[in-house]
Amino acid sequence: MALIVAYDGGPWKGFARQPGQATVQAELERALEELMGAPVRVRGAGRTDAGVHAAGQVVDLALPARCSIPLERMPLALGAHLPPSIVCWSAHRVPAAFHARKSALSKRYRYRIWRGRVPSPFVSAFCHTYAGPLDVPAMRAAAAALVGRYDVSSFAGAARRVSDPVRSVLDCAVQERGLLLSLEVEADGFLYRMVRAIAGTLLEVGRGALAPERVGEVRAARLRGRAGPSLPAEGLCLLWVRYAAHWGLPSPTDPGAWPPPP
Amino acid sequence: MALIVAYDGGPWKGFARQPGQATVQAELERALEELMGAPVRVRGAGRTDAGVHAAGQVVDLALPARCSIPLERMPLALGAHLPPSIVCWSAHRVPAAFHARKSALSKRYRYRIWRGRVPSPFVSAFCHTYAGPLDVPAMRAAAAALVGRYDVSSFAGAARRVSDPVRSVLDCAVQERGLLLSLEVEADGFLYRMVRAIAGTLLEVGRGALAPERVGEVRAARLRGRAGPSLPAEGLCLLWVRYAAHWGLPSPTDPGAWPPPP
Repeated sequence: MALIVAYDGGPWKGFARQPGQATVQAELERALEELMGAPVRVRGAGRTDAGVHAAGQVVDLALPARCSIPLERMPLALGAHLPPSIVCWSAHRVPAAFHARKSALSKRYRYRIWRGRVPSPFVSAFCHTYAGPLDVPAMRAAAAALVGRYDVSSFAGAARRVSDPVRSVLDCAVQERGLLLSLEVEADGFLYRMVRAIAGTLLEVGRGALAPERVGEVRAARLRGRAGPSLPAEGLCLLWVRYAAHWGLPSPTDPGAWPPPP
Repeated sequence: MALIVAYDGGPWKGFARQPGQATVQAELERALEELMGAPVRVRGAGRTDAGVHAAGQVVDLALPARCSIPLERMPLALGAHLPPSIVCWSAHRVPAAFHARKSALSKRYRYRIWRGRVPSPFVSAFCHTYAGPLDVPAMRAAAAALVGRYDVSSFAGAARRVSDPVRSVLDCAVQERGLLLSLEVEADGFLYRMVRAIAGTLLEVGRGALAPERVGEVRAARLRGRAGPSLPAEGLCLLWVRYAAHWGLPSPTDPGAWPPPP
Protein backbone atom coordinates (compact mmCIF):
# COMPACT_ATOMS: atom_id res chain seq x y z
CA MET A 1 0.00 0.00 0.00
CA ALA A 2 1.12 3.58 -0.61
CA LEU A 3 -0.13 6.63 1.25
CA ILE A 4 -0.06 10.29 0.23
CA VAL A 5 0.75 12.17 3.41
CA ALA A 6 0.74 15.91 4.19
CA TYR A 7 2.39 17.46 7.21
CA ASP A 8 3.26 20.72 8.88
CA GLY A 9 6.97 20.11 9.49
CA GLY A 10 7.17 22.72 12.25
CA PRO A 11 6.72 20.39 15.24
CA TRP A 12 8.86 17.53 13.84
CA LYS A 13 12.55 16.69 13.70
CA GLY A 14 12.21 15.81 10.03
CA PHE A 15 10.69 12.81 8.28
CA ALA A 16 13.19 10.04 8.96
CA ARG A 17 13.07 8.00 12.15
CA GLN A 18 15.84 8.91 14.62
CA PRO A 19 16.35 7.46 18.09
CA GLY A 20 14.69 9.56 20.77
CA GLN A 21 13.34 12.16 18.31
CA ALA A 22 9.77 13.02 17.35
CA THR A 23 9.71 12.46 13.60
CA VAL A 24 6.97 12.09 10.99
CA GLN A 25 8.02 8.55 10.10
CA ALA A 26 7.91 7.47 13.77
CA GLU A 27 4.44 9.05 14.19
CA LEU A 28 3.12 7.34 11.05
CA GLU A 29 4.48 3.97 12.17
CA ARG A 30 3.01 4.39 15.65
CA ALA A 31 -0.40 5.38 14.22
CA LEU A 32 -0.39 2.48 11.73
CA GLU A 33 0.55 0.01 14.45
CA GLU A 34 -2.24 1.32 16.70
CA LEU A 35 -4.71 1.00 13.83
CA MET A 36 -3.61 -2.41 12.61
CA GLY A 37 -2.44 -4.07 15.79
CA ALA A 38 0.89 -5.14 14.29
CA PRO A 39 4.24 -3.40 13.75
CA VAL A 40 4.42 -1.53 10.42
CA ARG A 41 7.46 0.03 8.75
CA VAL A 42 7.05 2.81 6.19
CA ARG A 43 9.49 4.07 3.53
CA GLY A 44 9.23 7.68 2.42
CA ALA A 45 9.88 9.16 -1.03
CA GLY A 46 11.85 12.05 0.43
CA ARG A 47 13.74 12.47 3.70
CA THR A 48 12.50 15.97 4.49
CA ASP A 49 14.65 17.75 7.06
CA ALA A 50 13.59 19.11 10.48
CA GLY A 51 10.98 21.84 10.01
CA VAL A 52 10.38 21.13 6.31
CA HIS A 53 6.74 20.68 5.26
CA ALA A 54 5.17 18.23 2.84
CA ALA A 55 1.90 18.49 0.94
CA GLY A 56 2.54 15.32 -1.05
CA GLN A 57 4.96 12.99 0.69
CA VAL A 58 4.53 9.37 -0.45
CA VAL A 59 5.20 6.40 1.79
CA ASP A 60 4.90 2.70 1.07
CA LEU A 61 4.31 -0.11 3.55
CA ALA A 62 3.54 -3.81 3.64
CA LEU A 63 0.02 -4.25 5.06
CA PRO A 64 -0.27 -6.76 7.91
CA ALA A 65 -2.08 -9.88 6.59
CA ARG A 66 -5.15 -9.39 8.76
CA CYS A 67 -5.75 -5.73 7.89
CA SER A 68 -9.25 -5.46 6.47
CA ILE A 69 -9.68 -1.68 6.28
CA PRO A 70 -10.80 -0.64 2.77
CA LEU A 71 -8.39 1.78 1.05
CA GLU A 72 -10.95 4.58 0.86
CA ARG A 73 -11.47 4.48 4.63
CA MET A 74 -7.76 4.55 5.42
CA PRO A 75 -7.35 8.39 5.58
CA LEU A 76 -10.04 8.84 8.23
CA ALA A 77 -9.18 5.62 10.11
CA LEU A 78 -5.51 6.54 10.29
CA GLY A 79 -6.35 10.19 11.02
CA ALA A 80 -7.94 9.11 14.30
CA HIS A 81 -4.46 8.03 15.47
CA LEU A 82 -2.43 10.95 14.05
CA PRO A 83 -1.79 14.42 15.49
CA PRO A 84 -3.44 17.33 13.59
CA SER A 85 -0.14 18.32 11.97
CA ILE A 86 0.06 15.02 10.02
CA VAL A 87 -2.70 13.98 7.63
CA CYS A 88 -3.16 10.90 5.45
CA TRP A 89 -4.71 12.25 2.24
CA SER A 90 -5.28 9.02 0.31
CA ALA A 91 -4.29 5.34 0.18
CA HIS A 92 -3.44 3.39 -2.96
CA ARG A 93 -2.91 -0.27 -3.80
CA VAL A 94 0.55 -0.65 -5.39
CA PRO A 95 2.49 -3.64 -6.79
CA ALA A 96 4.80 -5.38 -4.30
CA ALA A 97 7.87 -4.05 -6.15
CA PHE A 98 6.87 -0.41 -5.50
CA HIS A 99 9.41 1.60 -3.52
CA ALA A 100 8.35 5.15 -2.58
CA ARG A 101 11.83 6.58 -3.15
CA LYS A 102 13.40 4.28 -5.73
CA SER A 103 10.33 4.10 -7.98
CA ALA A 104 9.97 7.90 -8.09
CA LEU A 105 10.66 9.57 -11.46
CA SER A 106 10.89 13.03 -9.94
CA LYS A 107 9.91 15.16 -6.95
CA ARG A 108 8.85 18.80 -6.87
CA TYR A 109 9.65 21.14 -3.98
CA ARG A 110 8.53 24.71 -3.42
CA TYR A 111 10.42 27.34 -1.46
CA ARG A 112 8.31 30.38 -0.46
CA ILE A 113 9.49 33.85 0.41
CA TRP A 114 7.16 36.38 2.09
CA ARG A 115 8.08 39.87 0.93
CA GLY A 116 6.04 41.88 3.42
CA ARG A 117 7.78 44.59 5.44
CA VAL A 118 6.50 42.79 8.52
CA PRO A 119 5.93 39.04 8.88
CA SER A 120 2.44 37.62 8.34
CA PRO A 121 0.76 35.95 11.33
CA PHE A 122 -0.95 33.58 8.88
CA VAL A 123 1.86 32.36 6.65
CA SER A 124 5.07 32.88 8.70
CA ALA A 125 5.11 29.22 9.67
CA PHE A 126 5.22 28.27 5.98
CA CYS A 127 7.62 30.76 4.43
CA HIS A 128 10.83 32.69 4.85
CA THR A 129 10.40 36.44 5.36
CA TYR A 130 12.60 38.74 3.25
CA ALA A 131 11.63 42.39 3.10
CA GLY A 132 14.28 43.91 0.82
CA PRO A 133 13.79 44.69 -2.88
CA LEU A 134 14.17 41.74 -5.26
CA ASP A 135 14.87 41.68 -8.99
CA VAL A 136 12.42 38.94 -9.96
CA PRO A 137 13.30 38.86 -13.69
CA ALA A 138 16.96 38.33 -12.73
CA MET A 139 15.86 35.47 -10.42
CA ARG A 140 13.90 33.94 -13.32
CA ALA A 141 16.95 34.10 -15.59
CA ALA A 142 19.09 32.46 -12.90
CA ALA A 143 16.47 29.76 -12.29
CA ALA A 144 16.41 28.90 -15.99
CA ALA A 145 20.21 28.46 -15.90
CA LEU A 146 19.82 25.75 -13.24
CA VAL A 147 17.76 23.43 -15.44
CA GLY A 148 19.68 20.51 -16.94
CA ARG A 149 21.55 17.31 -16.08
CA TYR A 150 24.74 18.07 -14.18
CA ASP A 151 26.83 17.53 -11.05
CA VAL A 152 24.84 19.44 -8.41
CA SER A 153 27.61 19.48 -5.77
CA SER A 154 27.56 23.29 -5.70
CA PHE A 155 24.12 23.06 -4.09
CA ALA A 156 24.73 20.10 -1.76
CA GLY A 157 24.92 20.43 2.00
CA ALA A 158 28.48 19.96 3.22
CA ALA A 159 27.43 17.31 5.74
CA ARG A 160 26.99 14.36 3.40
CA ARG A 161 28.99 12.81 0.56
CA VAL A 162 27.30 10.94 -2.23
CA SER A 163 29.01 8.66 -4.75
CA ASP A 164 27.18 10.11 -7.76
CA PRO A 165 26.20 13.79 -7.43
CA VAL A 166 24.72 14.10 -10.95
CA ARG A 167 21.02 14.94 -11.00
CA SER A 168 18.52 16.10 -13.62
CA VAL A 169 16.93 19.40 -12.68
CA LEU A 170 13.78 19.18 -14.81
CA ASP A 171 12.28 22.55 -13.91
CA CYS A 172 13.19 25.58 -11.84
CA ALA A 173 10.57 28.33 -11.82
CA VAL A 174 9.91 31.59 -9.98
CA GLN A 175 6.28 32.62 -9.43
CA GLU A 176 4.93 35.81 -7.84
CA ARG A 177 1.53 36.05 -6.18
CA GLY A 178 1.03 39.21 -4.19
CA LEU A 179 3.65 39.32 -1.45
CA LEU A 180 4.56 35.65 -1.85
CA LEU A 181 7.38 34.57 -4.12
CA SER A 182 7.52 30.85 -4.85
CA LEU A 183 10.57 29.05 -6.18
CA GLU A 184 9.73 25.57 -7.46
CA VAL A 185 12.31 22.93 -8.32
CA GLU A 186 11.57 19.57 -9.89
CA ALA A 187 14.39 17.03 -10.16
CA ASP A 188 14.92 13.29 -10.42
CA GLY A 189 16.74 13.43 -7.11
CA PHE A 190 18.02 15.94 -4.57
CA LEU A 191 21.16 16.11 -2.48
CA TYR A 192 21.04 17.20 1.17
CA ARG A 193 19.54 20.72 1.51
CA MET A 194 19.76 21.22 -2.24
CA VAL A 195 16.51 23.17 -2.70
CA ARG A 196 17.35 25.47 0.21
CA ALA A 197 20.78 26.17 -1.35
CA ILE A 198 19.18 26.85 -4.75
CA ALA A 199 16.65 29.17 -3.06
CA GLY A 200 19.51 30.94 -1.24
CA THR A 201 21.37 31.36 -4.53
CA LEU A 202 18.30 32.77 -6.28
CA LEU A 203 17.78 35.16 -3.35
CA GLU A 204 21.39 36.39 -3.75
CA VAL A 205 20.60 37.03 -7.42
CA GLY A 206 17.35 38.78 -6.52
CA ARG A 207 19.02 41.16 -4.11
CA GLY A 208 21.80 41.95 -6.57
CA ALA A 209 24.66 40.16 -4.77
CA LEU A 210 25.15 37.70 -7.63
CA ALA A 211 24.66 38.44 -11.33
CA PRO A 212 22.29 35.97 -13.01
CA GLU A 213 24.84 35.30 -15.75
CA ARG A 214 27.28 34.06 -13.08
CA VAL A 215 24.97 31.27 -11.91
CA GLY A 216 26.34 29.03 -14.68
CA GLU A 217 29.83 29.39 -13.14
CA VAL A 218 28.46 28.64 -9.65
CA ARG A 219 26.81 25.51 -11.01
CA ALA A 220 29.97 24.44 -12.86
CA ALA A 221 32.25 25.01 -9.85
CA ARG A 222 30.91 21.98 -7.98
CA LEU A 223 31.91 23.75 -4.77
CA ARG A 224 29.24 24.40 -2.14
CA GLY A 225 30.94 27.64 -1.07
CA ARG A 226 30.23 29.31 -4.41
CA ALA A 227 26.44 29.14 -4.11
CA GLY A 228 24.26 31.20 -1.80
CA PRO A 229 23.49 30.13 1.79
CA SER A 230 20.83 27.52 2.58
CA LEU A 231 17.61 29.28 3.51
CA PRO A 232 15.68 28.22 6.65
CA ALA A 233 13.56 25.06 6.71
CA GLU A 234 10.14 26.67 7.22
CA GLY A 235 9.95 28.00 3.64
CA LEU A 236 10.32 24.56 2.08
CA CYS A 237 7.55 22.14 1.11
CA LEU A 238 7.60 18.85 -0.81
CA LEU A 239 4.71 19.34 -3.27
CA TRP A 240 4.39 15.93 -4.92
CA VAL A 241 6.20 12.88 -6.26
CA ARG A 242 5.89 11.63 -9.84
CA TYR A 243 5.72 7.91 -10.66
CA ALA A 244 5.17 5.92 -13.85
CA ALA A 245 1.44 5.21 -14.36
CA HIS A 246 1.73 1.43 -13.84
CA TRP A 247 2.47 1.92 -10.13
CA GLY A 248 -1.08 3.10 -9.59
CA LEU A 249 -0.41 6.47 -7.92
CA PRO A 250 -2.09 9.64 -9.15
CA SER A 251 -0.30 11.93 -11.58
CA PRO A 252 0.79 15.39 -10.33
CA THR A 253 -1.73 16.90 -12.76
CA ASP A 254 -4.77 14.88 -11.55
CA PRO A 255 -7.13 17.47 -10.07
CA GLY A 256 -7.61 17.03 -6.33
CA ALA A 257 -5.30 14.03 -6.14
CA TRP A 258 -2.56 15.82 -4.18
CA PRO A 259 -3.16 17.88 -1.05
CA PRO A 260 -3.11 21.65 -1.59
CA PRO A 261 0.18 23.03 -0.18
CA PRO A 262 0.21 25.86 2.41
CA MET B 1 -2.87 57.51 15.37
CA ALA B 2 -4.59 54.48 13.83
CA LEU B 3 -2.99 51.08 13.29
CA ILE B 4 -3.96 48.30 10.92
CA VAL B 5 -3.40 45.12 12.88
CA ALA B 6 -3.47 41.46 11.80
CA TYR B 7 -3.67 38.52 14.18
CA ASP B 8 -4.05 34.79 14.39
CA GLY B 9 -6.92 34.62 16.88
CA GLY B 10 -6.13 31.03 17.91
CA PRO B 11 -4.05 31.84 21.00
CA TRP B 12 -6.23 34.74 22.22
CA LYS B 13 -9.41 35.12 24.24
CA GLY B 14 -10.75 37.58 21.69
CA PHE B 15 -9.86 41.18 20.98
CA ALA B 16 -11.40 43.06 23.91
CA ARG B 17 -9.56 43.45 27.21
CA GLN B 18 -10.93 41.21 29.99
CA PRO B 19 -9.55 40.89 33.50
CA GLY B 20 -7.09 38.01 33.81
CA GLN B 21 -7.39 36.96 30.14
CA ALA B 22 -4.82 37.07 27.35
CA THR B 23 -6.47 39.25 24.72
CA VAL B 24 -5.26 41.07 21.62
CA GLN B 25 -6.16 44.49 23.03
CA ALA B 26 -4.21 43.80 26.23
CA GLU B 27 -1.17 42.63 24.20
CA LEU B 28 -1.30 45.70 21.98
CA GLU B 29 -1.54 48.03 24.96
CA ARG B 30 1.33 46.26 26.72
CA ALA B 31 3.51 46.43 23.59
CA LEU B 32 2.68 50.11 23.00
CA GLU B 33 3.44 50.97 26.62
CA GLU B 34 6.77 49.12 26.43
CA LEU B 35 7.62 50.97 23.23
CA MET B 36 6.51 54.43 24.34
CA GLY B 37 7.17 54.33 28.05
CA ALA B 38 3.69 55.57 28.95
CA PRO B 39 0.30 53.87 29.34
CA VAL B 40 -1.65 53.69 26.06
CA ARG B 41 -5.26 52.68 25.54
CA VAL B 42 -6.48 51.42 22.15
CA ARG B 43 -10.00 51.20 20.71
CA GLY B 44 -10.72 48.53 18.12
CA ALA B 45 -13.10 48.68 15.15
CA GLY B 46 -14.50 45.22 15.90
CA ARG B 47 -14.64 43.17 19.09
CA THR B 48 -13.63 39.88 17.55
CA ASP B 49 -14.51 36.90 19.71
CA ALA B 50 -12.15 34.28 21.20
CA GLY B 51 -10.40 32.39 18.40
CA VAL B 52 -11.54 34.75 15.62
CA HIS B 53 -8.78 36.05 13.31
CA ALA B 54 -8.26 39.50 11.82
CA ALA B 55 -6.33 40.49 8.72
CA GLY B 56 -7.43 44.11 8.92
CA GLN B 57 -8.46 45.10 12.42
CA VAL B 58 -8.18 48.87 12.97
CA VAL B 59 -7.35 50.41 16.33
CA ASP B 60 -6.98 54.05 17.30
CA LEU B 61 -4.96 55.51 20.14
CA ALA B 62 -3.77 58.82 21.50
CA LEU B 63 0.01 58.99 21.12
CA PRO B 64 1.92 59.99 24.26
CA ALA B 65 3.24 63.53 23.79
CA ARG B 66 6.88 62.51 23.80
CA CYS B 67 6.56 59.73 21.21
CA SER B 68 8.94 60.53 18.37
CA ILE B 69 8.75 57.32 16.34
CA PRO B 70 7.93 58.10 12.69
CA LEU B 71 4.73 56.47 11.44
CA GLU B 72 6.54 54.39 8.84
CA ARG B 73 8.78 52.85 11.48
CA MET B 74 5.91 51.99 13.82
CA PRO B 75 5.15 48.47 12.41
CA LEU B 76 8.69 47.19 12.95
CA ALA B 77 9.22 49.09 16.22
CA LEU B 78 5.99 47.76 17.69
CA GLY B 79 6.64 44.31 16.23
CA ALA B 80 9.70 43.99 18.45
CA HIS B 81 7.32 44.01 21.46
CA LEU B 82 4.55 41.82 20.03
CA PRO B 83 4.23 38.02 19.87
CA PRO B 84 4.44 36.48 16.35
CA SER B 85 0.66 35.94 16.22
CA ILE B 86 -0.03 39.72 16.31
CA VAL B 87 1.38 42.04 13.64
CA CYS B 88 1.13 45.79 13.15
CA TRP B 89 0.80 46.21 9.38
CA SER B 90 0.78 50.00 9.09
CA ALA B 91 0.31 53.20 11.09
CA HIS B 92 -1.68 56.25 9.98
CA ARG B 93 -2.11 59.79 11.22
CA VAL B 94 -5.82 60.45 11.83
CA PRO B 95 -7.81 63.49 13.01
CA ALA B 96 -8.46 63.60 16.78
CA ALA B 97 -12.16 62.91 16.23
CA PHE B 98 -11.43 59.54 14.62
CA HIS B 99 -12.96 56.55 16.42
CA ALA B 100 -12.01 53.11 15.05
CA ARG B 101 -15.49 51.68 15.62
CA LYS B 102 -17.80 54.70 15.43
CA SER B 103 -16.15 56.23 12.34
CA ALA B 104 -16.37 52.95 10.39
CA LEU B 105 -18.74 52.89 7.42
CA SER B 106 -18.65 49.13 7.12
CA LYS B 107 -16.64 46.03 7.97
CA ARG B 108 -16.11 42.89 5.93
CA TYR B 109 -15.73 39.42 7.43
CA ARG B 110 -14.93 36.13 5.75
CA TYR B 111 -15.96 32.69 6.94
CA ARG B 112 -14.03 29.81 5.37
CA ILE B 113 -15.07 26.19 5.03
CA TRP B 114 -12.56 23.49 4.08
CA ARG B 115 -14.32 20.79 2.08
CA GLY B 116 -11.58 18.13 2.10
CA ARG B 117 -12.48 14.62 3.23
CA VAL B 118 -9.68 14.98 5.77
CA PRO B 119 -8.58 18.24 7.47
CA SER B 120 -5.61 20.15 6.05
CA PRO B 121 -2.54 20.51 8.29
CA PHE B 122 -1.92 23.91 6.67
CA VAL B 123 -5.28 25.65 6.85
CA SER B 124 -7.18 23.88 9.69
CA ALA B 125 -6.32 26.68 12.09
CA PHE B 126 -8.04 29.17 9.75
CA CYS B 127 -11.17 27.36 8.58
CA HIS B 128 -14.01 25.09 9.57
CA THR B 129 -13.84 21.58 8.07
CA TYR B 130 -17.02 20.21 6.48
CA ALA B 131 -16.67 17.15 4.26
CA GLY B 132 -20.24 16.51 3.11
CA PRO B 133 -21.65 17.53 -0.29
CA LEU B 134 -22.75 21.17 -0.60
CA ASP B 135 -25.12 22.81 -3.08
CA VAL B 136 -23.11 25.97 -3.74
CA PRO B 137 -25.62 27.60 -6.15
CA ALA B 138 -28.30 27.23 -3.44
CA MET B 139 -25.92 28.85 -0.94
CA ARG B 140 -25.37 31.73 -3.39
CA ALA B 141 -29.14 32.24 -3.75
CA ALA B 142 -29.53 32.25 0.05
CA ALA B 143 -26.63 34.68 0.47
CA ALA B 144 -28.24 37.10 -2.00
CA ALA B 145 -31.45 37.00 0.07
CA LEU B 146 -29.53 38.26 3.12
CA VAL B 147 -28.48 41.55 1.51
CA GLY B 148 -30.49 44.59 2.57
CA ARG B 149 -31.36 46.80 5.53
CA TYR B 150 -33.35 44.91 8.13
CA ASP B 151 -33.64 43.76 11.74
CA VAL B 152 -30.89 41.11 11.97
CA SER B 153 -32.08 39.58 15.28
CA SER B 154 -32.47 36.16 13.60
CA PHE B 155 -28.68 36.07 13.32
CA ALA B 156 -27.77 37.59 16.69
CA GLY B 157 -26.23 35.56 19.50
CA ALA B 158 -28.73 35.05 22.30
CA ALA B 159 -26.34 36.38 24.93
CA ARG B 160 -26.67 40.11 24.24
CA ARG B 161 -29.56 42.51 23.71
CA VAL B 162 -29.17 45.64 21.64
CA SER B 163 -31.54 48.56 21.51
CA ASP B 164 -31.53 48.83 17.71
CA PRO B 165 -30.94 45.53 15.87
CA VAL B 166 -31.34 47.01 12.36
CA ARG B 167 -28.23 46.70 10.20
CA SER B 168 -27.40 47.14 6.52
CA VAL B 169 -25.96 43.99 5.02
CA LEU B 170 -24.20 45.51 2.02
CA ASP B 171 -22.87 42.31 0.50
CA CYS B 172 -23.06 38.58 1.15
CA ALA B 173 -21.10 36.44 -1.30
CA VAL B 174 -20.04 32.81 -1.67
CA GLN B 175 -16.73 32.07 -3.41
CA GLU B 176 -15.20 28.70 -4.26
CA ARG B 177 -11.47 28.13 -4.71
CA GLY B 178 -10.49 24.50 -4.86
CA LEU B 179 -11.48 22.87 -1.58
CA LEU B 180 -12.03 26.19 0.18
CA LEU B 181 -15.42 27.82 0.27
CA SER B 182 -15.44 31.46 1.43
CA LEU B 183 -18.52 33.28 2.67
CA GLU B 184 -17.97 37.04 2.84
CA VAL B 185 -20.30 39.46 4.59
CA GLU B 186 -20.01 43.24 4.55
CA ALA B 187 -22.30 45.27 6.80
CA ASP B 188 -22.43 48.64 8.53
CA GLY B 189 -22.46 46.80 11.84
CA PHE B 190 -22.70 43.31 13.26
CA LEU B 191 -24.49 41.84 16.25
CA TYR B 192 -22.82 39.26 18.49
CA ARG B 193 -21.77 36.16 16.47
CA MET B 194 -23.77 37.38 13.48
CA VAL B 195 -21.38 36.22 10.74
CA ARG B 196 -21.01 32.80 12.33
CA ALA B 197 -24.82 32.47 12.45
CA ILE B 198 -25.11 33.57 8.80
CA ALA B 199 -22.39 31.06 7.86
CA GLY B 200 -24.25 28.34 9.79
CA THR B 201 -27.46 29.22 7.99
CA LEU B 202 -25.78 29.11 4.57
CA LEU B 203 -24.23 25.74 5.48
CA GLU B 204 -27.72 24.41 6.34
CA VAL B 205 -28.83 25.57 2.89
CA GLY B 206 -25.78 23.99 1.27
CA ARG B 207 -26.38 20.59 2.82
CA GLY B 208 -30.09 20.67 1.91
CA ALA B 209 -31.50 21.13 5.42
CA LEU B 210 -32.99 24.54 4.57
CA ALA B 211 -34.40 25.57 1.20
CA PRO B 212 -32.83 28.80 -0.10
CA GLU B 213 -36.27 30.31 -0.68
CA ARG B 214 -36.98 29.91 3.06
CA VAL B 215 -34.07 32.17 4.08
CA GLY B 216 -36.33 35.21 3.63
CA GLU B 217 -38.68 33.79 6.29
CA VAL B 218 -35.77 33.07 8.63
CA ARG B 219 -34.60 36.66 8.22
CA ALA B 220 -38.11 38.05 8.76
CA ALA B 221 -38.75 35.92 11.87
CA ARG B 222 -36.33 37.95 14.03
CA LEU B 223 -35.91 34.82 16.15
CA ARG B 224 -32.43 33.37 16.61
CA GLY B 225 -33.77 29.82 16.77
CA ARG B 226 -34.93 29.93 13.16
CA ALA B 227 -31.46 30.41 11.66
CA GLY B 228 -28.69 27.79 11.48
CA PRO B 229 -26.21 27.23 14.32
CA SER B 230 -23.20 29.51 14.84
CA LEU B 231 -20.14 27.92 13.23
CA PRO B 232 -16.85 27.68 15.21
CA ALA B 233 -14.59 30.72 15.66
CA GLU B 234 -11.55 29.45 13.72
CA GLY B 235 -13.23 29.89 10.32
CA LEU B 236 -13.89 33.60 10.84
CA CYS B 237 -11.63 36.51 9.88
CA LEU B 238 -12.18 40.28 9.90
CA LEU B 239 -10.87 41.27 6.46
CA TRP B 240 -10.96 45.09 6.58
CA VAL B 241 -12.80 48.17 7.79
CA ARG B 242 -14.07 50.91 5.47
CA TYR B 243 -13.84 54.61 6.43
CA ALA B 244 -14.62 57.85 4.65
CA ALA B 245 -11.53 59.14 2.81
CA HIS B 246 -11.08 62.21 5.03
CA TRP B 247 -10.04 60.04 7.98
CA GLY B 248 -6.82 59.17 6.19
CA LEU B 249 -7.03 55.37 6.28
CA PRO B 250 -6.52 53.31 3.12
CA SER B 251 -9.51 52.14 1.10
CA PRO B 252 -10.29 48.40 1.02
CA THR B 253 -9.39 48.43 -2.68
CA ASP B 254 -5.93 50.05 -2.30
CA PRO B 255 -3.48 47.38 -3.45
CA GLY B 256 -1.26 46.15 -0.62
CA ALA B 257 -2.82 48.46 1.95
CA TRP B 258 -4.52 45.67 3.92
CA PRO B 259 -2.77 42.51 5.10
CA PRO B 260 -3.53 39.41 3.02
CA PRO B 261 -5.90 37.16 5.03
CA PRO B 262 -5.06 33.49 5.73
